[in-house]
Amino acid sequence: MSYYSPTYRIYVHETDVAGVVHHSNYLRFFEMGRIEYLRKLNEPYLTFQKQGIGFVPIHIDISYLKPLRQDDEYQITTEIISLKHASFVLNQQIICNEKTMVQATIKLGCVSEPEFKPRKLPENLHKKLKKELIH
Amino acid sequence: MSYYSPTYRIYVHETDVAGVVHHSNYLRFFEMGRIEYLRKLNEPYLTFQKQGIGFVPIHIDISYLKPLRQDDEYQITTEIISLKHASFVLNQQIICNEKTMVQATIKLGCVSEPEFKPRKLPENLHKKLKKELIH
Amino acid sequence: MSYYSPTYRIYVHETDVAGVVHHSNYLRFFEMGRIEYLRKLNEPYLTFQKQGIGFVPIHIDISYLKPLRQDDEYQITTEIISLKHASFVLNQQIICNEKTMVQATIKLGCVSEPEFKPRKLPENLHKKLKKELIH
Amino acid sequence: MSYYSPTYRIYVHETDVAGVVHHSNYLRFFEMGRIEYLRKLNEPYLTFQKQGIGFVPIHIDISYLKPLRQDDEYQITTEIISLKHASFVLNQQIICNEKTMVQATIKLGCVSEPEFKPRKLPENLHKKLKKELIH
Repeated sequence: MSYYSPTYRIYVHETDVAGVVHHSNYLRFFEMGRIEYLRKLNEPYLTFQKQGIGFVPIHIDISYLKPLRQDDEYQITTEIISLKHASFVLNQQIICNEKTMVQATIKLGCVSEPEFKPRKLPENLHKKLKKELIH
Repeated sequence: MSYYSPTYRIYVHETDVAGVVHHSNYLRFFEMGRIEYLRKLNEPYLTFQKQGIGFVPIHIDISYLKPLRQDDEYQITTEIISLKHASFVLNQQIICNEKTMVQATIKLGCVSEPEFKPRKLPENLHKKLKKELIH
Repeated sequence: MSYYSPTYRIYVHETDVAGVVHHSNYLRFFEMGRIEYLRKLNEPYLTFQKQGIGFVPIHIDISYLKPLRQDDEYQITTEIISLKHASFVLNQQIICNEKTMVQATIKLGCVSEPEFKPRKLPENLHKKLKKELIH
Repeated sequence: MSYYSPTYRIYVHETDVAGVVHHSNYLRFFEMGRIEYLRKLNEPYLTFQKQGIGFVPIHIDISYLKPLRQDDEYQITTEIISLKHASFVLNQQIICNEKTMVQATIKLGCVSEPEFKPRKLPENLHKKLKKELIH
């Protein structure tokens, strides 16, 4: 089951000279979507960060279907598709006018910051992600 | 054969609260590498853009091995691995202290801007990329 | 009278290694505030841009009082304080928890793009800004 | 006496839909210039940051004269114009083709991070800045 983020709007600083959103910015939007996904699971990202725990991309596979433009409104969908002890994989999409504009499969590893050493996922989060996986 | 970009340095605005370069920025670095690659082929990107021709990512597969940090110096390598009439695929790496930090396979499509309609690669560029492919 | 923008949230990519929002980003937030201000005046920025008309900063005077951090929610206020034929001046603030975090006085010039040649403000917009000035 | 930074080039991700560098990015370039200025004084910024010492903008007054565009090469000049115990003021310019494109007066305060509490400038740095002020 996909979680839908709040709706966001594209502003000028996210576009480039080609007149569309710069392709790097979708990775920022996906991260915004993940942060809202964790908030909805009642496991806010900030709480982990304050304990020196981060979730960092290990591998991203991203397909650009259509570009967003200035003033476009969009949502980010997030769905977990696999879960291990120290990592998990999400499917994420950028949705605009009910169309998928960009889609990605993103593998995130749990790390201790600031050394970025791999570590187990926090127990509570692991439980909740497991539940999400089954839905 | 891989082309090596000039050497760049990481500045504060490219880092985030986790103390390392934000993962979206590597897509910007790869694009810088591609622009320098085209310049080296004597086919500067700006010349194409002035004619309304762009090369836009269709698909990116990116692996994050180690993060860059403030003040790190890096180069971007670029190598063509496949070529069609309207698209081509590059291998790119971020190199720091002789280590690969991030690597990506990037499929670029040639488009007419600002509509982003697919079109054939300009003939001269196609010839030069073909030559690069053989090396 | 100050116009209040919608509420936005700070995300990771807007922070830097010092743990707070990078100081350059407030200029982006102010621009978001201006775009929403024009939308509220029923003179959307995008409509001007499609006609090759832009409003570009000529001079900015910005004071940083307190930094924003990850997950903070904020609004941008916008108030016109002076108006000429080809330029106008706004006071803008970043408000978080009812406190002013950053404030700026921003002089914007009307230009023809892409040459960035100064030109008169569109008549309707000039009328509406004049009305705002009096309130 | 003005310090000249290394030469940098403008890339696509620094432009926006209006076809020029987004005005927020010049604050990033000025910071790059300050970091290189400290390096030249043999007082690298990173060394301070590792001790939890930062230099943060308190007030910026910036004038936009001409926009930079894709592929433009530029340098950042930095000159100290006043010095106190816990703050200093710099004049900075963006130079392209020997022309000043953007200029700013930037007051920086010394702070303890991550609380951002004001503190005295480190003694050695204060000495060196004082010397620069006289030249």
